[in-house]
Amino acid sequence: MRDAYHEELDSIGDDLVEMARTVGSAMGRATTSILDADLSLAERVIEADRNVDETQHDLEARAIALLARQQPVATDLRTVVTSLRISADLERSGDLAKHVAKLARLRYPEKAVPSDLHATVLEMGQLAQRLMAKTAQVLATKDVRLALQLEQDDDDMDTLHRALFQHLMDDKWEHGIETAVDVTLLGRYYERFADHAVSAARRVVFLVTGEHAGDFAAEDGA
Amino acid sequence: MRDAYHEELDSIGDDLVEMARTVGSAMGRATTSILDADLSLAERVIEADRNVDETQHDLEARAIALLARQQPVATDLRTVVTSLRISADLERSGDLAKHVAKLARLRYPEKAVPSDLHATVLEMGQLAQRLMAKTAQVLATKDVRLALQLEQDDDDMDTLHRALFQHLMDDKWEHGIETAVDVTLLGRYYERFADHAVSAARRVVFLVTGEHAGDFAAEDGA
Repeated sequence: MRDAYHEELDSIGDDLVEMARTVGSAMGRATTSILDADLSLAERVIEADRNVDETQHDLEARAIALLARQQPVATDLRTVVTSLRISADLERSGDLAKHVAKLARLRYPEKAVPSDLHATVLEMGQLAQRLMAKTAQVLATKDVRLALQLEQDDDDMDTLHRALFQHLMDDKWEHGIETAVDVTLLGRYYERFADHAVSAARRVVFLVTGEHAGDFAAEDGA
Repeated sequence: MRDAYHEELDSIGDDLVEMARTVGSAMGRATTSILDADLSLAERVIEADRNVDETQHDLEARAIALLARQQPVATDLRTVVTSLRISADLERSGDLAKHVAKLARLRYPEKAVPSDLHATVLEMGQLAQRLMAKTAQVLATKDVRLALQLEQDDDDMDTLHRALFQHLMDDKWEHGIETAVDVTLLGRYYERFADHAVSAARRVVFLVTGEHAGDFAAEDGA
């Protein structure tokens, strides 16, 4: 029978998994809202981010209470501290999904993304959601091999991000400055979302193995 | 005579002050490098950010060691956890200064910032450095009134950021897409740098007063 401490630790872990699934889904819905110029969907994503923020504050308070009450040491201590960092990564990811939705809302009823970039943005949005779904899985299972797959997915996101920039800088760009600015920011939101998903997964790897993920995979200095 | 625990806590606090001063200065130098197209200055900023990262890792290790060895409770516990969060804000701020310098390096020998935006970018860079210098002072003195001043400075940064965007979207914009993209990212780096400086100062306010800074100042939902 697990003691109260480990039950609470498990509960915090479960909530982190749920949080990762929520922000991954939020980014998927935000992507749909911006590609379809769907105002009500965008507004729901923006509103729902409050819950993510509340969950993060709640998780932090519980982690700190655990530190105070149970005064864990060694692995248990590292687990609690890691949970704090992961919840910060996930909260920031939720903010980035909200930024995508806010951009959709800002440009409504126009589409923020021109048709010739629709496919690239869709790919980035889907990749971001898949990445975060993997992070959720890593949080649930502590599967280090799955966590290391995320490094490749992160490279794929960088490739898409670069393709987006190349398209922007192309002489044939015909969509003007406002759209160029929007697409620049959009690319950055997806790229940072991916960074946070990978960061959260790397923390799990470090917790489980004591090694940094970069020591397993090819070092890809950011 | 202070015990070993409180001496170590003070030492961590001192290092956070030093870290804030360092990243504030880095952003100042990065701004100079991008406005002057100064490649060697940019490269020094980029290189120096490794020290910031190392300092953060060191601070984290020491904070965790404190939690493990001394098992603090109540205020001391909150202080250690707050230090962890502040060091993360400051490390991210260092990265943002590095991004500014990298943009300078990328466009060298061209100037990334067109002359008609020189004054605005200079103002944003100087404001960012002043903001972080205040954060350093808040960390050193725990002065809540000074921390609350940062809220106004943050508003000033938002105003400058909006002015930058208005200039970009102006029909008379004549600098093309690449420069529009660069200026968009640059504006975001300064804005996020300011966010982290304010975030760090708010954490000190919460630690000292138990209240959120937003309850003192006008709420300015981001």
